[in-house]
Amino acid sequence: MIYGHDPRTGETVGAALPETDSAGVDLIVSAAAAAGAAWRATPAAERATALEAVADALTAHVDELWQLADQETALGEGRLRGEVARTAGQFRLFAQVLRDGGYVEAIIDHADASLTPPRPDVRRMKHALPGVVAVFAASNFPFAFSVAGGDTASALAAGCPVVVKAHPGHPNTSERVAKIVRDALPYPDLLGLVQGMQAGIDLVQHPAVVAAGFTGSVAGGKAIQRLIDEREVPIPFYGELGSVNPVVVLPSAPAKDVATGFAGSLTLGVGQFCTNPGLMFVPEGDELRKALAEAVEGTSGGPMLAERIRDGYLGGVERLGELQLLAEGKPGEGSWAVTPKVFTADLDTFEEKLPRIAEECFGPASIVVTYREVSDLRPVLERLEGSLTATVHGTDPEEAGEVVEVLGRKAGRLIWNGWPTGVAVCWAMQHGGPWPAATTTSTSVGATAIDRWLAPTAYQDWPEALLPDELKDDNPLSVPRRVDGRLQV
Amino acid sequence: MIYGHDPRTGETVGAALPETDSAGVDLIVSAAAAAGAAWRATPAAERATALEAVADALTAHVDELWQLADQETALGEGRLRGEVARTAGQFRLFAQVLRDGGYVEAIIDHADASLTPPRPDVRRMKHALPGVVAVFAASNFPFAFSVAGGDTASALAAGCPVVVKAHPGHPNTSERVAKIVRDALPYPDLLGLVQGMQAGIDLVQHPAVVAAGFTGSVAGGKAIQRLIDEREVPIPFYGELGSVNPVVVLPSAPAKDVATGFAGSLTLGVGQFCTNPGLMFVPEGDELRKALAEAVEGTSGGPMLAERIRDGYLGGVERLGELQLLAEGKPGEGSWAVTPKVFTADLDTFEEKLPRIAEECFGPASIVVTYREVSDLRPVLERLEGSLTATVHGTDPEEAGEVVEVLGRKAGRLIWNGWPTGVAVCWAMQHGGPWPAATTTSTSVGATAIDRWLAPTAYQDWPEALLPDELKDDNPLSVPRRVDGRLQV
Repeated sequence: MIYGHDPRTGETVGAALPETDSAGVDLIVSAAAAAGAAWRATPAAERATALEAVADALTAHVDELWQLADQETALGEGRLRGEVARTAGQFRLFAQVLRDGGYVEAIIDHADASLTPPRPDVRRMKHALPGVVAVFAASNFPFAFSVAGGDTASALAAGCPVVVKAHPGHPNTSERVAKIVRDALPYPDLLGLVQGMQAGIDLVQHPAVVAAGFTGSVAGGKAIQRLIDEREVPIPFYGELGSVNPVVVLPSAPAKDVATGFAGSLTLGVGQFCTNPGLMFVPEGDELRKALAEAVEGTSGGPMLAERIRDGYLGGVERLGELQLLAEGKPGEGSWAVTPKVFTADLDTFEEKLPRIAEECFGPASIVVTYREVSDLRPVLERLEGSLTATVHGTDPEEAGEVVEVLGRKAGRLIWNGWPTGVAVCWAMQHGGPWPAATTTSTSVGATAIDRWLAPTAYQDWPEALLPDELKDDNPLSVPRRVDGRLQV
Repeated sequence: MIYGHDPRTGETVGAALPETDSAGVDLIVSAAAAAGAAWRATPAAERATALEAVADALTAHVDELWQLADQETALGEGRLRGEVARTAGQFRLFAQVLRDGGYVEAIIDHADASLTPPRPDVRRMKHALPGVVAVFAASNFPFAFSVAGGDTASALAAGCPVVVKAHPGHPNTSERVAKIVRDALPYPDLLGLVQGMQAGIDLVQHPAVVAAGFTGSVAGGKAIQRLIDEREVPIPFYGELGSVNPVVVLPSAPAKDVATGFAGSLTLGVGQFCTNPGLMFVPEGDELRKALAEAVEGTSGGPMLAERIRDGYLGGVERLGELQLLAEGKPGEGSWAVTPKVFTADLDTFEEKLPRIAEECFGPASIVVTYREVSDLRPVLERLEGSLTATVHGTDPEEAGEVVEVLGRKAGRLIWNGWPTGVAVCWAMQHGGPWPAATTTSTSVGATAIDRWLAPTAYQDWPEALLPDELKDDNPLSVPRRVDGRLQV
């Protein structure tokens, strides 16, 4: 049986939930596949309406949901209410994406007999992958990256049914969210939920599964990739894995603002963000160092989401202990509570300890590396692994020099004078990055996340009567299209 | 040493070429990476001009090139001149793609303080993958899918340097094409060439390689995937593998046209196309059967590209020998010549022998399966593996019934009343399909092939001075963009 736990006490909370056995996984995936056949044939505008019904249902249950999730995560009312709103907002964004229609990337090349060889009429658009999407929920966002998270919302939007492997950190919240979403969908089986590690293995190896999404650790991502490698038919794996999120503070940046912002971003949600700033390069000098120490000392820790995550943090902090401790916050309260810690080293010492020292330590810990000249940074930045984000602080863009070009190859999102925690749900967001930040070049947040669950089909001299509406001559759905090489809106 | 061979005689032809050793591969990849840093920073319009210079150079050398390739492939003047033109045309198409600018998929979301939480300014576009693209050349298109083929053209267009592993079927042609392309590029090292199987292994495992393209067999594709799985940092693998390309002939289709078209498509280029029609479902009855037999008997075989490919064909034909022989063409002339063969079975017999019987047999062989009712086809079509193409012949679209929906999940390109050989190079082409037709959902032919070598970056509150031109407020390059949710051209 699977139990939720209260991070404040370490005690079990909520109902005992059975693990889903292999037969159960097969039933759930098969039901999802059957519902998916009808969903795939449902016009985009109707799918949009269904997504909005899900958003409404989540919003209507926010009072119940935040309390349930708080018992299992200790993330608190404000954060959890906001997260439910964000989760509903993700469904609403994808409803917009569907109504816009640009996501199918419709292209029409009319026949041209004057070419050598003559060109037939060729039309292309993207459709949902023909099967079930497996989603592995994350621990740290019990709504926005879990059962009804961005992977689920974008896959449902694309036209795919989804089966989620619940995260053991919030099993009761997972069950409740699944029930709410299923009740709001036109075909409830479009969303399935399985519990337990073996169920996750069975899920990703099920023949009806055509793609998998995952948010979690590098080790977890590698384990799922190995399971996929064992499949007879390979499937795409969209994993959003670890990230150290380097920050470069230029000499012109105001010390106090940087210190305050850093301490806040580092300790938000007990540092349990994949976009947590785990590494910061700052110019040598006492002022910033002192401001940083003061700001960190003003922070407090708190209980982490799970015992295993707490243990992982303590291990990471021990590893970082080979550097000098710059400052620590106040200890948090609760059974699985931890203390924010910031370590420091000069650039040479840090470089000597690469790459191991720069591995992600999930939680409120970071390394502050001091440099002499901005131009000294390049060789060290070149040696960093891929991250979800990279940030620069400064008042003069020219001061950044080569730093910008290097960071542009190291991260999926570049931030100026801000902090990486907080990922806006919008059309332009990119939440991904070079390995090991992500397993592909795709994003798991924002409008283009839908593209992961689509595949193109070309139609050659295909009869008008059999063409999808998006490709018919008179464009009945008014979708943006590229016709004979020119984009038309 | 590596030698070219004349398929008409089996004798060696041209110069003896050394295999590239590991140190050589490292030098070539490193030189490509160095040239790539400058190329990546080159504006799209200048890359377009360079691609056109490559097209001009290939065209200028067509007399020399077709003769060289004919010695190594026996594909003949007409086909090879046409293929050089196609290859130059691919470079010209990508020059258009670069000038259009839509390929970067620019998106701008302006800051919005009225939202909860407030949204920062977020802008997103795609850039070239930061490193070298490895391309594994195919045997059957010594120009269009080889050293200067679609993978190379699209990767150079994206802004990536390329190192090609030459196909041993045309090593001298490969060297000459590489020289011509290198001389036409602003940085010759943007294109490298390596020879030999071990060189291919070293290439795909080189740390500076960030993606690989491949056109070839399922076995070859799996072997490269295994090599990639051994890498410390995984990379995307864009393989276009085997395909059986099913054709469904509806009762309304005119027998004579189908028979003539089928025999022509089957034997074009000695059947050495990945889009060869290897499987055709026809209604029971003597008329079409007789017309097919006559048409096939009117064809002639010819020498295949390599001894190994000829042996593979003979093995495939032996496997198909468990079915009834419907007809065969005239034997071809030359050392590695083969004879076109068409086998037949009824639907039940064919279904019993699935999936093995439907594996691709590369060359001019096919299976004609007879059915009673169109509605009988669905369960059999459901059991077919993914293909690059699926074709329907008929005069009444309604007659196709459920066939269309099933084929839509089984192939990347759907063709009506045409034949799958011949892949138009245009904006809307999709040359790919479900596994094992391809390893991803991408295309290796047509404008969107460039997308394989690109990755998105988001810029958050990024200073105008540091933004790429494609994302600057006044849109100096006039690229199509999505601004605050609306596509603008």
